Parts: sequence; structure tokens; C-alpha cells
Amino acid sequence: MPLRTKQNYIDSIKAMQTNIWAYGEKVNDIYAHPCFKPAVDAIGMVYALSGSEVKNEGYGLFTAHSPFTGDRVSRFLHIHQTQEDLKNRFQLSRNLVHKHGACIGARCVSTSVLNAVFTTTFDMDQSTCSDYHTRFLKFLGHVQENDLAVAGAMMDVKGDRSLSPHEQVDPDLYLHIVEKRPDGIVVRGAKASISGAAIAEEIVVVPCTALSADGQDYAVSFAIPSDAPGILHIAEAPAPNMRRLVGKEMDYGNARYGVHGSTHVIFDDVFIPHERVFMCGEYAHAAKLVNCFASLQRLNTTSCKAGHRDLLIGAAAVAADYNGVGSARHIREKLADLHHHSEIAFGCALASIYTGEKTASGVFTPNPLYVNIAKHKGVEAIWEGTYTAADIAGGLVCTLPTADDLAHETIGKVIDKYFKGKEGVSTEYRIRILRLIEYLTGQGSVVPIESTHGAGSPHTQKITIGQDLAKKIEKFKKDAKIMAGIKGEDI
Amino acid sequence: MPLRTKQNYIDSIKAMQTNIWAYGEKVNDIYAHPCFKPAVDAIGMVYALSGSEVKNEGYGLFTAHSPFTGDRVSRFLHIHQTQEDLKNRFQLSRNLVHKHGACIGARCVSTSVLNAVFTTTFDMDQSTCSDYHTRFLKFLGHVQENDLAVAGAMMDVKGDRSLSPHEQVDPDLYLHIVEKRPDGIVVRGAKASISGAAIAEEIVVVPCTALSADGQDYAVSFAIPSDAPGILHIAEAPAPNMRRLVGKEMDYGNARYGVHGSTHVIFDDVFIPHERVFMCGEYAHAAKLVNCFASLQRLNTTSCKAGHRDLLIGAAAVAADYNGVGSARHIREKLADLHHHSEIAFGCALASIYTGEKTASGVFTPNPLYVNIAKHKGVEAIWEGTYTAADIAGGLVCTLPTADDLAHETIGKVIDKYFKGKEGVSTEYRIRILRLIEYLTGQGSVVPIESTHGAGSPHTQKITIGQDLAKKIEKFKKDAKIMAGIKGEDI
Amino acid sequence: MPLRTKQNYIDSIKAMQTNIWAYGEKVNDIYAHPCFKPAVDAIGMVYALSGSEVKNEGYGLFTAHSPFTGDRVSRFLHIHQTQEDLKNRFQLSRNLVHKHGACIGARCVSTSVLNAVFTTTFDMDQSTCSDYHTRFLKFLGHVQENDLAVAGAMMDVKGDRSLSPHEQVDPDLYLHIVEKRPDGIVVRGAKASISGAAIAEEIVVVPCTALSADGQDYAVSFAIPSDAPGILHIAEAPAPNMRRLVGKEMDYGNARYGVHGSTHVIFDDVFIPHERVFMCGEYAHAAKLVNCFASLQRLNTTSCKAGHRDLLIGAAAVAADYNGVGSARHIREKLADLHHHSEIAFGCALASIYTGEKTASGVFTPNPLYVNIAKHKGVEAIWEGTYTAADIAGGLVCTLPTADDLAHETIGKVIDKYFKGKEGVSTEYRIRILRLIEYLTGQGSVVPIESTHGAGSPHTQKITIGQDLAKKIEKFKKDAKIMAGIKGEDI
Amino acid sequence: MPLRTKQNYIDSIKAMQTNIWAYGEKVNDIYAHPCFKPAVDAIGMVYALSGSEVKNEGYGLFTAHSPFTGDRVSRFLHIHQTQEDLKNRFQLSRNLVHKHGACIGARCVSTSVLNAVFTTTFDMDQSTCSDYHTRFLKFLGHVQENDLAVAGAMMDVKGDRSLSPHEQVDPDLYLHIVEKRPDGIVVRGAKASISGAAIAEEIVVVPCTALSADGQDYAVSFAIPSDAPGILHIAEAPAPNMRRLVGKEMDYGNARYGVHGSTHVIFDDVFIPHERVFMCGEYAHAAKLVNCFASLQRLNTTSCKAGHRDLLIGAAAVAADYNGVGSARHIREKLADLHHHSEIAFGCALASIYTGEKTASGVFTPNPLYVNIAKHKGVEAIWEGTYTAADIAGGLVCTLPTADDLAHETIGKVIDKYFKGKEGVSTEYRIRILRLIEYLTGQGSVVPIESTHGAGSPHTQKITIGQDLAKKIEKFKKDAKIMAGIKGEDI
Repeated sequence: MPLRTKQNYIDSIKAMQTNIWAYGEKVNDIYAHPCFKPAVDAIGMVYALSGSEVKNEGYGLFTAHSPFTGDRVSRFLHIHQTQEDLKNRFQLSRNLVHKHGACIGARCVSTSVLNAVFTTTFDMDQSTCSDYHTRFLKFLGHVQENDLAVAGAMMDVKGDRSLSPHEQVDPDLYLHIVEKRPDGIVVRGAKASISGAAIAEEIVVVPCTALSADGQDYAVSFAIPSDAPGILHIAEAPAPNMRRLVGKEMDYGNARYGVHGSTHVIFDDVFIPHERVFMCGEYAHAAKLVNCFASLQRLNTTSCKAGHRDLLIGAAAVAADYNGVGSARHIREKLADLHHHSEIAFGCALASIYTGEKTASGVFTPNPLYVNIAKHKGVEAIWEGTYTAADIAGGLVCTLPTADDLAHETIGKVIDKYFKGKEGVSTEYRIRILRLIEYLTGQGSVVPIESTHGAGSPHTQKITIGQDLAKKIEKFKKDAKIMAGIKGEDI
Repeated sequence: MPLRTKQNYIDSIKAMQTNIWAYGEKVNDIYAHPCFKPAVDAIGMVYALSGSEVKNEGYGLFTAHSPFTGDRVSRFLHIHQTQEDLKNRFQLSRNLVHKHGACIGARCVSTSVLNAVFTTTFDMDQSTCSDYHTRFLKFLGHVQENDLAVAGAMMDVKGDRSLSPHEQVDPDLYLHIVEKRPDGIVVRGAKASISGAAIAEEIVVVPCTALSADGQDYAVSFAIPSDAPGILHIAEAPAPNMRRLVGKEMDYGNARYGVHGSTHVIFDDVFIPHERVFMCGEYAHAAKLVNCFASLQRLNTTSCKAGHRDLLIGAAAVAADYNGVGSARHIREKLADLHHHSEIAFGCALASIYTGEKTASGVFTPNPLYVNIAKHKGVEAIWEGTYTAADIAGGLVCTLPTADDLAHETIGKVIDKYFKGKEGVSTEYRIRILRLIEYLTGQGSVVPIESTHGAGSPHTQKITIGQDLAKKIEKFKKDAKIMAGIKGEDI
Repeated sequence: MPLRTKQNYIDSIKAMQTNIWAYGEKVNDIYAHPCFKPAVDAIGMVYALSGSEVKNEGYGLFTAHSPFTGDRVSRFLHIHQTQEDLKNRFQLSRNLVHKHGACIGARCVSTSVLNAVFTTTFDMDQSTCSDYHTRFLKFLGHVQENDLAVAGAMMDVKGDRSLSPHEQVDPDLYLHIVEKRPDGIVVRGAKASISGAAIAEEIVVVPCTALSADGQDYAVSFAIPSDAPGILHIAEAPAPNMRRLVGKEMDYGNARYGVHGSTHVIFDDVFIPHERVFMCGEYAHAAKLVNCFASLQRLNTTSCKAGHRDLLIGAAAVAADYNGVGSARHIREKLADLHHHSEIAFGCALASIYTGEKTASGVFTPNPLYVNIAKHKGVEAIWEGTYTAADIAGGLVCTLPTADDLAHETIGKVIDKYFKGKEGVSTEYRIRILRLIEYLTGQGSVVPIESTHGAGSPHTQKITIGQDLAKKIEKFKKDAKIMAGIKGEDI
Repeated sequence: MPLRTKQNYIDSIKAMQTNIWAYGEKVNDIYAHPCFKPAVDAIGMVYALSGSEVKNEGYGLFTAHSPFTGDRVSRFLHIHQTQEDLKNRFQLSRNLVHKHGACIGARCVSTSVLNAVFTTTFDMDQSTCSDYHTRFLKFLGHVQENDLAVAGAMMDVKGDRSLSPHEQVDPDLYLHIVEKRPDGIVVRGAKASISGAAIAEEIVVVPCTALSADGQDYAVSFAIPSDAPGILHIAEAPAPNMRRLVGKEMDYGNARYGVHGSTHVIFDDVFIPHERVFMCGEYAHAAKLVNCFASLQRLNTTSCKAGHRDLLIGAAAVAADYNGVGSARHIREKLADLHHHSEIAFGCALASIYTGEKTASGVFTPNPLYVNIAKHKGVEAIWEGTYTAADIAGGLVCTLPTADDLAHETIGKVIDKYFKGKEGVSTEYRIRILRLIEYLTGQGSVVPIESTHGAGSPHTQKITIGQDLAKKIEKFKKDAKIMAGIKGEDI
């Protein structure tokens, strides 16, 4: 089966009846909206590149052989059969960021959520007589065969963070089952900041926290089209995005693809037919599903952020060239330090693959210790990168004039004269590269803050690392006691 | 003499013929422009607070007794006579940021530039028969008596950073004298990213680098009204500011005062009469003027940034309260760590005052070692603060909906329900505090990047610190040799 | 009164009957013992330098005018009357470390303990009818007039750290009153790791923790000669010190003064006459005494450690010179960075003096926030310095041959040939400077670890800093709410 | 073939005529010397453990199948055929440090030097008609068959670091060929700080730097027995080791194995027969040999240092337990942070194996970028660990009494009473664990400084990382330009 084309994807998204709101207004034509078109184009570009691989190279980063369809499928929809699969998927994210510099959540997250639900439903069916895994395999075949864009929705809005789902004053602050019908279930709640939800064809929903028996109505997982009745999308509106309503291409830094494009997804009593329900009250399996998803998505995001840092290194190096100091030693050292700290995160993520393991269901998953260390360090390196790039590029990053200024008959000439850097470099290009740095450092995008929280805030990784030590500490203590010459009952 | 009122300042700015351009258009009514009004209001607020001090408290942070007018003058226009003067001026910046959260360059920088030109012209007249100091005293009396808003302009646009001013292909890339007339001089060039230049009444211009004999045309300092013929202002247009053209008050985080308001100031053959020229070719004095200005402005900015971090700590603490986790231990520890790193910068700046010295002219100036360490650390703490606050506040900081969304009849209710935090806190307030964090962390403002470069990039402070060690290293080596029992000719 | 001479001090110490044990044997002649002689000589040197000041310069760093004796006294025994007093005392520690490179606890700590007991007894007498302050003034006069070496003993051995003093299984693990007699009290317990206790003439003892009513027997402070009946000193024996029993002068790095010289002081039912008791059950005053002592001693130790880092910078620079790379850029940058981080701690300590305050008793004390930040950073900089100096000096620091090797007829020649650095530098000198680095980085001394815990472990400073924020956080939150446009009852 | 026994190794070492000097005296019985016996025992233990593996488990970490002998050989002497080989060798170092806590250079380094010479001689023979590889294979067979202890000697004494080998005033400051004879060559020079050289049976010597044609006499590699005529060993004598001449078992922290045991190896015109010469003037191959050795040994040392940190975590945890605060949150967090920073280095080293490659000769080698990042971070984590462990353990680490004190009839009882921690823990054990921490933090050993320089100082890794970026920077810049919308000839 040939994979889908870019045009086919865009046509499909345009044809959907997705209910999206942005800046207080309904979005009727998503592909005409300045805050969604770049995100759609980024996904479109990924489809186009996948097509090229199919044409030219046989199996590679973009595609894999699915044992479930018996055919070539998108890497983003593939269930990781081997260590090599996981490594290819990992590398793919970094490579793609070099091209889009933004977010392709509508493809990226699907790998994590599909693999996590795959392995969890397998385990659930092993321990009970449920048929969740069978249902899921059917859904998986559907998206693989049609090469659909699939978003994953985990994060609830969460209300009072000191309370469990069932303890909230408003029970809807975590998504939950409000009714069980003969043919399916009805759910209510909201999933926050879901990357690519409005520009995907399907959304797979999972819980966002471990649950006890009190919270069994919150133990729910399912798949649903993005434009299903009762689903409402509210667009994110970070400060830099708002300028998309008034600015010009040159002002955006990353004009083609540079909008994150996530939405808050509200489920207003949405009906889910049984065949698309993958968890329905099995609270004891929620923690494992959350952890599996977290490990996989932290791996993806570590790769993605390495790509962002590569761009930042490149952009800062170009800015230094344009300023005439590209070969200055302190510039080169700062860039090498950033590369150093960038690669230690990427390297540690590679280690998580190298020491990964197969689950009972046959999914190859990363080592939780190393993937959590990698994600935590990767975010630190993003912030270090913003400081380094801002340092190298200079204060002009925050005081640039606009495309309209540069285009003006008289003012434009003044800008062209005085914002010039090194002889031979056009002023426009110098402004463009500084706009890209503005974008990458978060003043013109959401990169650092999104990096911090995407796939789990830093604290969540610290918890996992602490748990790992707890498992090893008695061994470490014993070794120390023996070495110190301590003998006794406790050794 | 009563100090000027807020209204008097605003009327004066509105009455000026300042030639300002923003977003490709001429700004005809500065006080009506969404990107200048907040900055004007911030300066206006400072005038209002000064008036309150005069009314209620006698001399204090805002005012001082000028030996030059024999009367009470604004602290911002005061020549530091004592250590206490410098300390009061220092503390004032931090206190004011708590109220405006932005930049009051049209008042703040005047202290640095006036004190630096005061002491440099004094020295120049001592070593030659010039009368620069006498001219400057006359200008000083003028601004002190009329309580004017005065900007300071140092940073040139600089073209190729690897070349000296006189080596640039286009000689205008550093501001310089293009003609000497019987009654004055004509200057050409551009000063970049000048805080408050368009909303001040006067601009004092100084060189931005040490100069050799080849660069004597660049050794020029003078005062000029902001709306003098030949002066053109081009507004900064960072990504977050652009939304001011389309957003609503609630979307801005710091709606009242939250725009930096700097302009690039172009000098297109501007005539300066002799009585307002304070340096004209004395290249050997340029380095001292630059260093004196740098020390004083690095002191101000260290205080200013401490104020920003206080706001960030406060805002993050409120966000944590609203999320129901205000008393969680890891939150409190992160805030205490930020306070720790914030105060080490502020404390080190205090040390620069405590170990400061009087120049020959009688100006009390900070110790260069400690003020450079303080500025460098203060910027690091700003970046640490952005990470910490983003970490605590959560990913919603980069995916907030707008005021228009919240005001919409149906969508607004959904937002009100699902973006709620702890019971008893209004959703609007929660969004407001997250918008303030968006602003303070630079996604909605320019705070981190402006902090990095305002008053000199990190590298410039490192240079000073290295120079300090170079002066001390032989003593340190000698002590070490004696202690190691090394005897010989080199001790 | 002329201050005491070095010889007078040494004679006095030799004449005492102090009960000291080291390496399993009684130390009969302290001045002949290789682990005590250097420490005695360091104190002797301080007496000698004080005498020089008296002779040549009038009042200065070493001496001050005492309002209690009406005469010149040692700065180490002086009650801080002014900010200038505190600054002089602070600077003195750094200057002296340049000469001794070790510890002069028998003089250094006296300032902290005398000032802390002075102000606490003043407060105690104000709130009750006690006469502790009068008793203390008499003792103070005695030590000032005779220029005695006085140690301060705070740290108890503490047993189980999770239990309060009165909760310990063995009540003696904190020093306490075991009997009250008509003429005085009897105390039992042990003070751990007391700098200079065995080479001082007097020891002033204070509690080491806040106390409740249950712990009133532990609320005890007094003065006692170091050789009083029932007092037993057990010498510290860190790994590097042990070589003093076998090595040669050249092997020690800092041969003259380089042994810390602290002892553990055991109080085996020691009788204290009433006139030397300064607290006896007033548990409510213990916390204040501890905090006052801690602030003052953290100030001293911050200065002391700055001196150690100066030596380390000097020694690393000499080692680089001897290796032929003294002017290599990466070496100079590393040293400048160490200087940077060293001075930020010292500067912040200066700020604690600049913002210090007088207690009710008239003692000038440092600002607790800045002195705690300074101490914490100063210790971090010591560890950074050990890494930096080890990095610069090279691996030979840990593989040096001995003086005996170098002195050997044939082997010595081989060493002289092959351990040579830059032409013109003697091999012996190169080995000597590397031995000093071995010493300063803790492999040959206790500097980093002692720095970490002397005057309180890092955690204790973190606590104070956290308490400071707790006092300010509501103000910070209020400012943030106003700026965010949040109105309501909580503002 | 059964591998060698511990006793066989010890007997062999005792029987050798190795010329060793320590503390100015000739070492006649190496196994009786307090500074060599522990190192010999550590190597002996490794032989014993290898034997156990052979007996019980078949092939594993300790042994591998050699294609050169066709038999089982020690992992330490194995040429890495596969990624799995390299991973096993890597893991082995960490596991062994848990047992010895010191250095097993006489086995550890052999892997690096044998593999590096293997691959370099292969390449040399490919490009010329030499037969170095054939000679080397014969030597390899010899050591594999007899399971010999082999040291690797790279680091020259280097004299003036700013000069190349041939530029030194004394040409012997880098080891070089002084004579070529019909049957072999004569070499002169000294290799510094060679781990295990005196307790190995063979030493393989390689150059320590890239060389030009001027330095062809320095391009020399060969194998030689440790006790060959003309070879002289001078023992390292770091401060903590000296106590071995006077102390007792309990004082050493790591009494059994805790001495590094390196020697400086002097080559006083040593004759090397042709069949043991592996490079003789081929200066162009020196850089590759150095880099290959460096990568392999940095991998080993990264594993080794992870083992040291595990011990440090264990020891600090035990000390906290003994102090009664083993479950305190701030203790657990500090240990988890250390584990975090320890594992990021170890993980990145795993990534270097995972992304490693086979050389033309068939040796599997690690990726240079990741192994250099890993080594650099591993050393930083060692220093962080020393600070953390010192912080947790308390100041007593640097003021402990000795075994003789504790054994003394009366003083011993006092110590037993007052140095007690938590009830139920013996005072002796508490002292023992603190002595181990003293050892591991470098006050009683050389761990941090040796870590810093073993396998190359931090700067050498920075160089490699910078070189890696240099290879990638043009790609990074191109991506940034495309994203910024910059078009032109440079893309």
C-alpha cells in the first residue's frame, strides 16, 4: 500500500467538521487560519517526506513493516518490535525538527500512545477475560492501513493539584465515565494542551495518573475522531502567536511551520462505542499505562529537543558570522559547551534504548532510569541554550524592527543602512536570523516552556530517578560496609 | 521647588514633535499608541510617587538635595555625593520594579549618564584647558530645575564586531562627528535599543567603546532634545509586543506598564551647539567614560533585575497557591533557592557600594569588581528564575486562552469550568497570574534577553573580573610560593 | 598596655597542664608534637603580627580600643562597637590565611563567642534579675587585659541526630549540667572538633541548638581554662596529618603552619564556679545565642575561605608557570572564573556587614540573610577551587615522590631530571608547589571538608535563607497580584 | 586452559626482580610493603573472581573466547570483537570497583593498550610493508595464553608543556629512541604515574601525543617486562598513603585494597628486541594510536568512577543511618541527585558503545563524542559526590581519632561513649564508615584528583567535543538559514 500524500492529509483535515475556537471566534476554515496553517503544513511535510522514502529508499526511518497489516506502515503508527525500531523512531524526531522547528504532535505522539495502549491492553486481557487488546488491534489496523494522523491525549486539567481525581469539588476536572450504555460509554472532562489534537484525524485518550478503587470512573481509555459530536477544541494563545493576526512572514522567525498548534480538548458528554473503548474501570492498570506512555514520549521529546538545540547552535553560529565574529574563540567555546550539554542528554536517551526491554506483549520499551535522566537534562539544556544563544546573538534579538518597517520607502533605507552587520551580508538576512533566534529562545514561540512540561515536568523525572536509587541503595550500602570492614548481622 | 507632576510630564511628551516610527507607520500620537502608552504611564507613575515623597516624607529614596541648584531634585538626576546617595539610588530601582515590572529607562539611565559625564568632563578639564565641565554643569542645572526625563544613549549599531569604529566599511555604523562649525558640530550615526529615548525630553549621548587616535571623530558626547531636527526613532517590535495591536488588557500579564519601550535612535546629520557638547575628539577619555557609565548602569540594572525576580517569586507562589500546592515542600524549596540566588547578586551589588570610592570630581562610584560580578550573577538568576517559575506554574503558561475566549457567551463558560484551580479561586484570576508569569519569563515580554544585554553582555563583566585578577595574581602567587617553601629571586 | 609577644604565648601554652591525647598516646610536650607545633606557631605568628601593628601603625586590623578596659586590645577579643569594627575583623581573617593557610581557631573563634555571649547575657539580664552580663564583663576584662588565646566550643557530639538532647539514650551526648552546688555547677559531655581548643588558654562553651523546657539542663554557657581538671582533649587524626609522624618538611605543602589542630573536648564532671557561668537553665535564650554565634562565625569563615582560595589561585598559577603554560588562555580563564566565584561569596559577606545592625547590647552584627548566603557560596567555591586547581596542576599532584626520594644519591638525580618543568625552574620548587596544591585541595589537609562543616553545614544556611523568604513572600505575592490585575479581599 | 590463580599471580610478582623505590628506599619485598600489598591483593582478587567465573558460569564478564588462541582468555586481555564484548568489558570495571574501591591498573589498562596497538599495527602494516601486526599478534598470544598482568604506559613526564617533544631542552622528557641496533632499539625517557606498572608482568608503551616528522624518534611503541634491565620504578607518595607507614588497619577506610599503587617508570637506555617493537618512527600513526587508546581507556575509567560513586552513595547512606537520619528527606534527595548525575555519565558511556564502530582491523571501539562527554561528566560527578558525601557525613570525617586511640584502655572508653551515633550501632562501625568516606572523598586517597586526570584531563575531552561540533556546524547553520527564510549562494 502506498502511504498517504501530503495533499490527501490536508484535504482530509479541511473536510472534517472539527469544532475549534480561537481568539473568541469559531475557526471555520482551519487551513486558512494563521495559527493552524503552519501546523497543518508541518504535518503535511512529514507525509511528503515519508512518501519520498517509500519511493527511493525502501524501509528506513519513516516506515516499517507492520506484523498487523502485513504491509509497510508509517513509523509513527508502528508498534516497536525491536531495539532497532525504537532507535529509528527516536532518531526520526531529531531529524524532522531540523526541518520544521516546531511541533508535529499529530504524528509524534501517536507512537507513544499506540505502543502504551497496545502493551497495557495485552496485560489487561491476560489478567482478566476482557477483549480490550482485540478491540485495540482492530483500531490499530484501521489507522495503519489508512495512515491516519493520530493525537494522544493524557493530561487532564487537574483543578486542585493537592486532590485526587475523585476528591475534586467538580468531578469533571479529570475526564471520567458519566454513563455506561449497552452500546458504549459517555465521557466528560477536558484534556489540556494536547499537541496536534485539532489537526489529527483520531485522538487516543488515556488517564494521566495512577488511580485507586475510588477513582475507577477515571480509569478510561478510548479512541475518538477529532470532530466527533461533543468535542470542542480551544486553541492555545501564547503571546508570540497573537502576532500571527497582524504580522508578516519575515517577522515570525519560523514562518512556515512555527506554531505549536495545540488545543485544549473538551469532552462534553461524548459517546464512545464499545469497540473503541480500551480501558473501562480497570484502575489497577492505570499506573502502568501512564508510565509506559511517559517513558516512550519522554524518549521522543528528548530527541525533538536535541533537534531544537541543533537549530539554536546553527542560528547562533550564523548570527555570529553575520556580526563578524563567527571565528571568535569565546563564541566557539560557548557553542561547543552547548553541543556538549545537548549531546549528553541525547546520549543518555540512546542508553535508554540500548538497555531497554521487551514487555510481555512484545513492545520494545526504553529503560526508565536513563530516559528520565535524559528528558530532565534535555530540558536543562534547552534553557541553557536560550541563554547561550541570546548571549551570542546580542540585544537586538529583543528590539528588532518589523517587515513593514523594512519595506517602508524611507524608513526601510535607514534600517537597511544601520542594521547591517558584516560587509557582504544583507540586512534582511541578519534580521531574519535574529527573528529565528527570537523564535527558538521562546520570546517568539513557546519552546523553552513547552519543553519543560511536554511529556512531564522536571519533578516527574526526579521521582523516577529517586525510585531507581531506592531499589539499589541496600546493595550500595552493603558494598560500603564490607569495604569499611564492618561485619555483622546486617551484611 | 516642587517636583513635576505626572500630568505635567505626560503633557510635555505629548506636545513634543518627536519623529517616531513603529510597524511601518509614523506614530503621531505617542500617548495613544498601544506600544508606547504603558511606557509613558510607567514614567508618569514615577513622577507621581516622587511627588508623594515630597509631600509626605521629606528627602528619601526619590529626592535629594542638589549642591548645584541648592534645592531638592529628583534622585534620578542627582550627582552621587555620598555612599548613602548611591545606596538610595540603588534600592530605588528594585522598589519601583515591584510596581511597574517593565522598564523606566527614561528616568533610570539618566543617573548613570549624568554622573559619568560629570566625572569625565571634570577630569578632561583638569588635564586640558577645556570648559566641558562648566558646560555640563549648566545642562545639569537645566534638567534638575525642570525635573526633565533624560535618556542615556551609549550603544552604537556596531556593524562588523571584529572591526573598530574607524575600520568599518560604512563609517556611520558608530556615531561620529561629520562636521565642525563655528557654533557647534554635526553628528551622524545610530544608537541601538535605547531605553526610553522616545519618551524622554533629553538624550545624553556618549561613546560605547575605548578609542585610539584613529577614532577621534567617534569621541563625542553631547545632549540633545529627543525631538531635535534630524533625529528619527524606530520602535522595537519584539514578538510579544505585536499582540498589543490585537489583544485585550487581560492578555498582557502586565497590562498597565508592560512594554519595554526602547527605540533605535538615528542621527541624520544632527547639529549640536557648542554649549551642549561635552566631548569632541578627546579619544583618550572615552574608555573612562564608558567604564564609569557601565559600572553605574550595571548597578542600577542589578537592582532592577532583583525586583523582577521578586515579582517572579511572588507570581510563582500565587500560581502554586491557585493550583492547591502553595505549601508543597518542593515548591517552597525551589522558591527559596531562587531567592538565594537572587540575593547573592543583590548582596554583591551592595558590596560594590560599600567598597565604592569617590572620583576626583566628587562622584561616589561603585567598586568595579563587585558590580560586575553582581550584574553577571543577576542575569544568571533571571534565567534560573524563568526556568523555576515556568516549572512551578505548569505548561498552561504557554497554552492559555484569550480574554475574548473567556468573554464569549458559550466558550467562556467552558473555560471558566475547566481552567479552574483550587476551589475558591476565580478562573480569571488564575489565568491572569499565568499571563503575568508568561510576561515575566520572557514569552510575553523581553525580560530575560533584555536582562542579558542591558548594561553590557555577560562577556563584558567577565573581562572586568579577569582584569581584577590580573592585578592581584602576582601577590597570590607570591603568598603561595612562600607557603610552599620556595625561596629565590622571584619572591 | 603592650599586647603579648609570640614567645609569651608559646611559653604559656607549654606551661599548661593540658590533658591531650593523640594517636593513642598522651601528649606531654605539645610544642614538640608534629601535629600541634604548626598550629601553635600559627597562633604565635598572629601575636607577632599584632605586635608589629602596635609598634608601627597605631590602631588597625589587629587591634582596637576597648571601652571595657579603656585600652588597646586585640581585635580578636574586641566587642564590635561599629560597622567598621566588624569590617576590620572580617578582612583580618582573609589576610591572615595568606600567611598561615591553615586554622587559627584559638584566636579566630574568640570574637564570635565573646560577642555572642556578650549580647545574649545582656538580653538575659534585661528580662530577668540575673547578673550574667556583669560576670561576663569581668571575664572579658580578664582576657582582654592579658591578651589570652580563647577558643569557642559549640558543637556537641550529638549522638542520634533525629533526637533532641534530652531524648538521647545517653544524656551526656549533649553537654549538660549534672549538679548544682552552692559555689558553682558541674558539667558533663563532649564538644566535637573544637578548633584551637588545646592550644588556647581559655574555652568559652555555649549550647549548639535551640532548646525547650525539657532541655533546660542543656542550656549552659561558661568559661573554663583549657587545662582545668576533668577536661580531656583527643586530637583529630585525619589521613594527611598522620604522615607528620614519618614525613619530612618538604612533603607537607604547608610545613610551617599546616595542621588544623582541633581537638574533641571531653568534660568529665568539670566544676565551673558561678562567676564563670553565663547561662544556667535559661533555655529560651539558647536559640538566640546559637544564631548570634553562627552569624558571626559564618562571617569569619567566609573571609578565611576567601583567603584559602586566593592561595589556591596563586598556587595553581605558579604550577602553570612551572609547566610552561602560565599564559595559556584556558588556564587564565579558569583562574578568573574561580576568582569570580570566590569574590561573589566575599562580596555578599561584605553586604552582610553593610546591612548589619546593632543589637540592644550595642554589638554590631551582620545581616543573617547575606552572611548565610555568603558562607554557603564560599564553601561551594572551595570545592570548585579544588577541582580547578587539581585540573590545572595535573595528575602529578597525586603521585609525587617524597623528600627522601629527592635526597637519595641516585634516585634523587633521576627525579631531578624527569620531574622538571619549564627550563629555569628547579624540580624541587615544582614539587613543592604541587605539594601545596595537594594540601590546599584536601588530599593533604582537611580544607574542603572542614570548610563545609565549620560554622555550620550547608543545610543550616539554607534554612536561614528559607526563613528569610518566608518573611517576605506575602509582600512578593501581593505585588504580583496587583500587577496581574487581580483584585479582591486578599490584596 | 584454566585461567591463572590468585596465588600464581602473587608468586610471579614476588619472584620478579623489579627495581622499585619508595620513600627513599629500595623495595625488596613488594608484597611486604604497606603501599604495594593492597594493590597486589586487589589484582589477586580479580584473578580469583575470574577463576570463579570459569568454574561456575561459563563465559561472562570476566572471560571471552579469543580467536587468536582459540581458547578462553581473560576479558582484560581480549580484543573486542563485538559490541557485546565492549559492553561486557565496560560493565566489568564498575562491578569490580564495588569490591576493591581502588585501582586495578595492572589489569584494567591492558584492554585499552592491547586493542589500540592491535588496530594501529594493523593499519600500519596495511599502508607500508611493515610486520608490526604480526609481531604484536605473537605478543598478544603470549599474554593471553599465560594470562599475564599487563600495564599500559602512555603519559610522558612532558617537561615544558608549551613545547613539543623534540623542542624540549632535555630531549628525554618524552620517551624516545636513542639508538637503533641490528637486533632492536634502545629507548630513554620516563612515563609518569603509570597505574599498576610495578605489579604487572609486562608493560606496553605507546606515545602520548600526535607527532610530526620532527618528532619521529618519539614515535615508538613496544612491550617490555616490568623488571627488565634499565627500568626503574619510583612509587607515588600522596599524603594519605604515607600513613600506611604508621597507621593501623582501621584507620585506612579501605584497608584491604585502598592504595592506588602507580609508579613513575624510568627507562634508562632500555633495550627492546625487534619482535617486541610495534612502532618505530611512523610518526603519522601516533595520533590515531593515542586517540584509540584514549577512547578505550576513557570508557573504562567512566565505568570505574561510576563504581566509586556507588560506593560513595552507599557509604553516605550508611553514615546517615548511623547518625539516625537515614530517612530524612533532604538526605535522600541529595543521594538521588548524586545517583542522577552519576548515571547520566554512565548512560552516556553506554551510548558510546551503542553507537560505536568496528575499525578496519575488526576492533569494536566506542563513539568518541559520547565517550568523551561521559568521561568529562563522570569526573564532575566524582567531585559533586565528594561534596555531597562530606556534607551528609558531617565534619567528623576530618577529625576522627585513630585505631590506637580507640584501643587505649581509658581513652578508648571515652571515644566509645562520645562518638556513638544512633542506638544499636557500634562506635567502631561508625568510625569505620567515616574513614571510608574520608578515603573515597580524597582526603584519605587520591580518588578525585586521580579521576580528574586518569585517561586524560577534562580539557582533552573538551577538545574532542569541540572537534565534533566543528564537523557538524555547517549542517546546523544551513538548517537554520533555511528555516529563517534566508536564500542564497551559501545554502
